[in-house]
Amino acid sequence: MKSTALFYHAGCPVCVDAERQVAQALDPARFQVEIVHLGEAPARVAEAESAGVQSVPALVIDGNVYHINFGAPLSALKG
Amino acid sequence: MKSTALFYHAGCPVCVDAERQVAQALDPARFQVEIVHLGEAPARVAEAESAGVQSVPALVIDGNVYHINFGAPLSALKG
Repeated sequence: MKSTALFYHAGCPVCVDAERQVAQALDPARFQVEIVHLGEAPARVAEAESAGVQSVPALVIDGNVYHINFGAPLSALKG
Repeated sequence: MKSTALFYHAGCPVCVDAERQVAQALDPARFQVEIVHLGEAPARVAEAESAGVQSVPALVIDGNVYHINFGAPLSALKG
């Protein structure tokens, strides 16, 4: 069974670059990758926060959060 | 031809965790991953610095640096 990898981003250049190189570099044989654009799906900010995401871009693999570089704090995405 | 992915770390828990989940999650069909333990290979700190690494753990894919979470600043690894 594949592991779940969630990549949260907000559309900024830092995020998009990390999405292209890191999220898409994961082994498709082992990971089901879902890209979540929090700018377009603000309803999922709470979900990201619950997962422990503090800033974007962030990659969550099997529940573990990896903040990659720094694009924006999650607080900036709250309405 | 495979892309090169360098994962620099220093042996701390933050680094080792990221190594296990992120570096090893990369697609082996597309990436040649090299793990560099800067604590054991201090001679390579300069190389990491030249690549733009500011803290460990860090992943360098095709010359682009991705700092993952934060374990230690590179300056802490200089002799």
